[in-house]
Amino acid sequence: MTRSTMLALLLLAAAPLSQAQSPALPDAGASDAQKLGWMQGFPPAADKTVRFDNGSFYSFPRLRWSFNHYREIVPTKTVSRGDGKVQAFASAPRDLDGVQFTTMDGRAMNFAEALQNTYADGVVVLHRGRIVYEKYFSEGRAERPHLAMSVTKSFVGTLAATLAVQGKLDPAAPITQYIPELKDSAYGDATVRQLMDMTVGVQYSENYADPKAEVFDYARAGGMLPAAPTYAGPRSFYDFLVTLKKEGEHGQAFAYKTANAEVLAWVVKRASGKSLADLMSEQIWSKLGVEQDAYFQIDRIGSESGGGGLNTTLRDLARFGEMMRNDGRANGQQVIPAAVVQDIRKGGDPAHFAKAGMSTLAGFSYRNMWWVSGNAHGMFMARGIHGQTIYIDPKAEVVIVRYASHPIAGNAANDPVTLPAFAAVANSLMK
Amino acid sequence: MTRSTMLALLLLAAAPLSQAQSPALPDAGASDAQKLGWMQGFPPAADKTVRFDNGSFYSFPRLRWSFNHYREIVPTKTVSRGDGKVQAFASAPRDLDGVQFTTMDGRAMNFAEALQNTYADGVVVLHRGRIVYEKYFSEGRAERPHLAMSVTKSFVGTLAATLAVQGKLDPAAPITQYIPELKDSAYGDATVRQLMDMTVGVQYSENYADPKAEVFDYARAGGMLPAAPTYAGPRSFYDFLVTLKKEGEHGQAFAYKTANAEVLAWVVKRASGKSLADLMSEQIWSKLGVEQDAYFQIDRIGSESGGGGLNTTLRDLARFGEMMRNDGRANGQQVIPAAVVQDIRKGGDPAHFAKAGMSTLAGFSYRNMWWVSGNAHGMFMARGIHGQTIYIDPKAEVVIVRYASHPIAGNAANDPVTLPAFAAVANSLMK
Repeated sequence: MTRSTMLALLLLAAAPLSQAQSPALPDAGASDAQKLGWMQGFPPAADKTVRFDNGSFYSFPRLRWSFNHYREIVPTKTVSRGDGKVQAFASAPRDLDGVQFTTMDGRAMNFAEALQNTYADGVVVLHRGRIVYEKYFSEGRAERPHLAMSVTKSFVGTLAATLAVQGKLDPAAPITQYIPELKDSAYGDATVRQLMDMTVGVQYSENYADPKAEVFDYARAGGMLPAAPTYAGPRSFYDFLVTLKKEGEHGQAFAYKTANAEVLAWVVKRASGKSLADLMSEQIWSKLGVEQDAYFQIDRIGSESGGGGLNTTLRDLARFGEMMRNDGRANGQQVIPAAVVQDIRKGGDPAHFAKAGMSTLAGFSYRNMWWVSGNAHGMFMARGIHGQTIYIDPKAEVVIVRYASHPIAGNAANDPVTLPAFAAVANSLMK
Repeated sequence: MTRSTMLALLLLAAAPLSQAQSPALPDAGASDAQKLGWMQGFPPAADKTVRFDNGSFYSFPRLRWSFNHYREIVPTKTVSRGDGKVQAFASAPRDLDGVQFTTMDGRAMNFAEALQNTYADGVVVLHRGRIVYEKYFSEGRAERPHLAMSVTKSFVGTLAATLAVQGKLDPAAPITQYIPELKDSAYGDATVRQLMDMTVGVQYSENYADPKAEVFDYARAGGMLPAAPTYAGPRSFYDFLVTLKKEGEHGQAFAYKTANAEVLAWVVKRASGKSLADLMSEQIWSKLGVEQDAYFQIDRIGSESGGGGLNTTLRDLARFGEMMRNDGRANGQQVIPAAVVQDIRKGGDPAHFAKAGMSTLAGFSYRNMWWVSGNAHGMFMARGIHGQTIYIDPKAEVVIVRYASHPIAGNAANDPVTLPAFAAVANSLMK
C-alpha cells in the first residue's frame, strides 16, 4: 500500500468524526454485517472481503465485521480463563425495549432504538447480578469475543492499582524507577500516579480526524494498522513510546492519551515481571468464572496493547463489571482488593477533568483509568471508542455492558444517546 | 526485508534437511526454548525476540518457541469447543521412560531419550483410553495449543470422507464440480478421490531444501511466511492454487503435496457451505469433550490453512486420536461415521505409495490424508513436519500424540527414532 492510499484509508476511517451531529449517518440496520455479507463464501467476493493489509478492516461499515473477529485480523495473545468452573448467571428477563428517555439533544427515544442508534453489536444488562436483558446484533454473538478498545485501559488501571495494594508497585514513584528507558521522553519526570490518572503532559494527539495525529503513529508502530512498504518508523509499542516529547506540565490537567495507558501497561509488566495477558489471567480472569479466554492484540514483538487491544465476550465483560460493582468480590472470593474499587469510585480531581472540555461528561473525573461520574448514583464507567462500554450504577445495583461498532470513533458521538439511555434503564430497574 | 534476506532466512530454515544424518544437530536440551529465554522481559532483548516480519519465527532454534505460540505470530480463526462438558481422561500412570528399542540405524535407545532426540515439546500416551504417560518439554504446556503442521491434513481428509458418507460430497466427482475456478489448473481433470489420496499430477515441490520449491510460494501466498515489500505474487491460498500446472498423470502415484490438501479444504468448504473452522467445530471439536478451542492459521482473506495451519493442545489431539481408534465413537456418541475410519484403516494402494520412495515408511499407503502402515497392528498415523504425530495402534489399544520442534522439517529425519520408539511403547503396554 502506498502512503497516499494509506492516508486515504485513514481519512476514510476518521472522516465521520467531523460529522458527529450529521443526520447522514447510515442506520444500523443498513450496516448490519450479516446483511452486508462480509466474508461469506470461499473465497468471499472481492468487494465483500475484510482484510488487514489494505486497511479496510478499519473502515466503516467493514469495521462492524472486524470488531467481532479481531483475532482473524492480527496476531493475539491468550488471557487464560484457567480450568475453573463457569460461574453461570441467574436469569430474570425484563422487557426493557420500551424504556423511554430523552437524548441530550432533546429527542424522545426508547432503549431498543438507542441500541440501534449506537450500532450495538450486543448488550447485557445485569440487575443484582442477574441477567435481565441480553441481545446481540449484526456480527455480535454471545460466544464471540469483541474488541474492547479503550475499555482495555480500565483493566490495566485496575491491575496497576491492585499491584499497588499488594506492595508491588508504588504510584508515587517516578515512572523511570520501572522504565529507565523513558528518561529522555515526556515520561522522564512524571509519576506512576500521573499515568494512572492521565495527567501527564505529553505531545500526543488522540484526534482521529487528523491523519497526522500521533495516535496513528502509535497504531502503525504497534501493528494495529498496516504500515507502508517504505515505513521506517518504530516497530513496537516500546520503540514508539520512548520517542514521545513533553508538552506542558504534569499533574495539572486530565488529557486522554492512549500512550499513557501503554506506558502504564509497560510499568505493570516491569513491576510484576509478567506479561499483561498472564497478569490479567492470574489476578482477574482465572477467578471470575468466565466462559471464554480473553485475548489481546499484540505488536510485532509480542507485546499486548494495553491501550486498546483486549477482546472479551460480553457476558465475561459483565462478570468483570459485576465484580467491580461488588467491591472486588465475585465467584465466592475477593478478586480485586476492595480498596482498589473504593479508590476508583471516589474518583479523581474533577477540576483536572474539566480542563479537557468533554461536553458529554460534565462533572466526571478520571481515576485508575476509569471514568467516574460523580453523580448521585456513584456511576462509573470503562469506555472505548466506537461505543464500547462498561456502565456500573452502584445505587441501582445495575451493570450494563455494550459492545458496538459506531461509525464515529469518539464517544462524544454516541454519549448523547448512550448515557441517558443507560440511566433510564438503571432507573427503571430500581422501581 | 529484502529478497536476499528472505532467501537467506529460508535457506537457514531449510538447511538442516541436507544434514539429515548429521551428528552435528544441537541436542534438545541445548535448544530448550525456556533455557534460551525467548521473549522474556519487556521488551525481550533484540537477540531473544521471535518475530514474524523478519522470518525469524521459522528458524531453528526460535521455532521451538513459535510452534507453541503460533497465534502470537499470525492471525487465527477459532475452532470452537462449544459449551459442552470436558470429557476428563482417566489416568493410569506407567513409567515408560526406560522402554528400550533399537533405532532404524541400529542405535540402542530408551523412550525418554527418544523424546529428547526428536525435540518433543510434549507427548501423551493413551492405553485403552487412559493417560498412561504425559510429559511437556521446552515451551510445551498442557494448556497451550501447538502447531500441528500437516496433521491438519488428516482432519481435512476425515471431514471430506465424513461429508461423503453424509451425501454432501462425491469423491468420484471432478474437482471442478465444486471449484470451477480450477479448470485451467492441474486440478482441472482430477477427481476429489485423487485429491484425498494425493495421487494428483501437479508441478509442486515440497522440498524444503530448495528455496525455489513451490511450497514457499504457497507459504508466502498464504501469509505463512513474510513477503518482501516488492512481493507481487498471489495474496491468498485460492489465488495461489489456481496457478498450479499439471505434471504427469493423475491416479498413478502417491506424491505428497500440501497444495492438494489446500484444494481439498476448498472443496470441503464449498461442499458444506462452511468455513473449515466452523465445519470442524460442528462435526468433531464440539463433540469430543475437548478442553480448549483449537484454531487455524488463516491467510490475508481469512481462509484457514487446511494444509498445515491447525493448532490444538496435546490432550485434545489425543481425544481425536482415541476417537479414531474407537471407530469414530467418543464421549458417548458416534462422532465420525464408523465407515470413515474403516475406510482409512483399510488404507490406499501401497503400490502407488511405494513410488514416492519414502524409505522410512516401507509398506505404507495413504488414504483420506492419513498414513496407513499396513502392519500387523493396523497402525495408522497423522504426520506433520518437524515431528508432529498422531500414532494409532488398534491392536495394542494405544494412541500416542507428540508435538515437537525438530530442527529438520522432513519427518525422515526423526522417523528412524520415532517409529521404533512408538512401536516399543505400544508393545510394552500390551504386556
